[in-house]
Amino acid sequence: MKLATLKDGTRDGQLIIVSRDLKTAQVADGIAPTLQRALDDWGFIAPQLDEAYRLLNDGKGRRSFDFDPANCMAPLPRAFQWAGGAAYVNHLELVHAARNAELPESFRDEPLMHQGAGDDFLGPRDDIALPREEWGIDFEAGIAVVTDDVPMGATPDEAHQQIRLLMLVNDVSLRKLMPDELAKGFGFPQSKPATGFSPVAVTPDELGDAWKGGKAHLPLRSSWNGKPVGQPNAGVDMAFNFPQLIAHLAMTRNARAGAIVGSGAVSNKDAKKGYSCIAEKRCLELIADGEASTPFMVFGDTIRIEMLDADGKSIFGAIEQTVKQTDLRKPR
Amino acid sequence: MKLATLKDGTRDGQLIIVSRDLKTAQVADGIAPTLQRALDDWGFIAPQLDEAYRLLNDGKGRRSFDFDPANCMAPLPRAFQWAGGAAYVNHLELVHAARNAELPESFRDEPLMHQGAGDDFLGPRDDIALPREEWGIDFEAGIAVVTDDVPMGATPDEAHQQIRLLMLVNDVSLRKLMPDELAKGFGFPQSKPATGFSPVAVTPDELGDAWKGGKAHLPLRSSWNGKPVGQPNAGVDMAFNFPQLIAHLAMTRNARAGAIVGSGAVSNKDAKKGYSCIAEKRCLELIADGEASTPFMVFGDTIRIEMLDADGKSIFGAIEQTVKQTDLRKPR
Repeated sequence: MKLATLKDGTRDGQLIIVSRDLKTAQVADGIAPTLQRALDDWGFIAPQLDEAYRLLNDGKGRRSFDFDPANCMAPLPRAFQWAGGAAYVNHLELVHAARNAELPESFRDEPLMHQGAGDDFLGPRDDIALPREEWGIDFEAGIAVVTDDVPMGATPDEAHQQIRLLMLVNDVSLRKLMPDELAKGFGFPQSKPATGFSPVAVTPDELGDAWKGGKAHLPLRSSWNGKPVGQPNAGVDMAFNFPQLIAHLAMTRNARAGAIVGSGAVSNKDAKKGYSCIAEKRCLELIADGEASTPFMVFGDTIRIEMLDADGKSIFGAIEQTVKQTDLRKPR
Repeated sequence: MKLATLKDGTRDGQLIIVSRDLKTAQVADGIAPTLQRALDDWGFIAPQLDEAYRLLNDGKGRRSFDFDPANCMAPLPRAFQWAGGAAYVNHLELVHAARNAELPESFRDEPLMHQGAGDDFLGPRDDIALPREEWGIDFEAGIAVVTDDVPMGATPDEAHQQIRLLMLVNDVSLRKLMPDELAKGFGFPQSKPATGFSPVAVTPDELGDAWKGGKAHLPLRSSWNGKPVGQPNAGVDMAFNFPQLIAHLAMTRNARAGAIVGSGAVSNKDAKKGYSCIAEKRCLELIADGEASTPFMVFGDTIRIEMLDADGKSIFGAIEQTVKQTDLRKPR
């Protein structure tokens, strides 16, 4: 099943059901007004959505219309929980190697995770609006799951059963603000600005055999200013799978329905697979050449993030965002 | 105006209006079903709530009933944004002095802030349910504001205008898990479990002259197992006021309606005012005696947090929580 949220002027938008080929859609209004409301009562709501989804795919949708990602908010336009993991240890190894530091052994035993903010998500075609290029604007292409209720102390196996949806995520990062925040130890309230998401969220069965062992075994494709820069396989070199990431989050708390847990930048040890964030490219340059030559994003830059199935068809639709200078009324 | 949320079996509860003396309440159903919905459209909704509040205080409430904090969820049972500041630098100075470290100069120039999780808040009488005492369970008494929409780049003055409500907060912390998470730099996804809030949220005018300069100039009273342990004045030694904390959060993002921003543990330089968290008491002991003798909380311990006005009347009602061992189905 594929779900999206239509811009309708409200904060939570309008839940729509999207056909498997991403061509048509219909409003889910008679079933659930918003995706959060559907997740709040998934056991009851999901079968109804699924029934409508099957009819839509059979060309029997009710008042269906052409699906346009440009009219979409993030599938969850706001969320009560957004935790970003760093599951691809290769990414961490590169960052450490670039500054001649050893990766702490604990980083291999236990996932790194930051708590994100859920009040201001970006739709798949929304601008990355920021006032300053010198903050080091970087995309970060990853995958995220949306969970049902996960009780405190859930094991990875238990957490696995609570995964309801998958999305693509652009966990935008401000690299030049990050060292200071890392040094403070309190996380990234400033260096992780608003996060972007794919047009649709899909149930894991939409990935078929590619969803296995709590991982999505398909390449995640990033194009920066139209040029392909990365296609690492999200199922390769993922040191902690989604069930483990969720269990990490839920060790001391309940994670509640609609919680989003991200993978971090997808990264393969095979450097030929390219990169899912500029920081990683710069680390490789630093290690090879002694200096990072690729600049971060500038105003006007675009980033496209997409995942295709084995037949070359887009699963989630594409994130396509442009970095744009904001008009702050008063410069700080 | 005073607002609370009644437990009604739903995830967001039922918005109620509470009389100034905290004795009676009435359902706000005809106006807004939940506090988040009220905040989503505050300019339109607040005047209607305020009119009902005035009638309730005049004894003219409609279908009013006795107010019982035991039936309350957190005023916002879940929130899209919960950012905890560390605005009382004395607290940070003690923590650093206890380990013979200098407080970094930057900690005086810019607020420390961690991103919290908003999906699983605790009501004022809900148990602090955790499986392990050895995690170092600590209360942390503070104040929090709830904002309206705050645009990215808002100045402190602009942020000040967007403060809608005040609450008391028990930002429960797991002290023994904190050093490892601090070292990783990614914040506190595990060492900050579910957060508790006061029975009611109040508009700033309810504090009268005590709300001044973006600070609440009244003592915050904490009693641990019935024994008063702290009454520091929340308006004293607050190095960053709420407008500054909000502006810090909003530097690189919009903060949206219903965002909660906390002060951190209230702490005065005058040690006679006691403490708002056990960690601070232990730091004082470590500095004076070379070892921390006060243990953290154990199962069965209680914590009461309250703020009284100049006439000795409770403004927010009291947080009264008991630490309780959870029954995890499967121990981890």
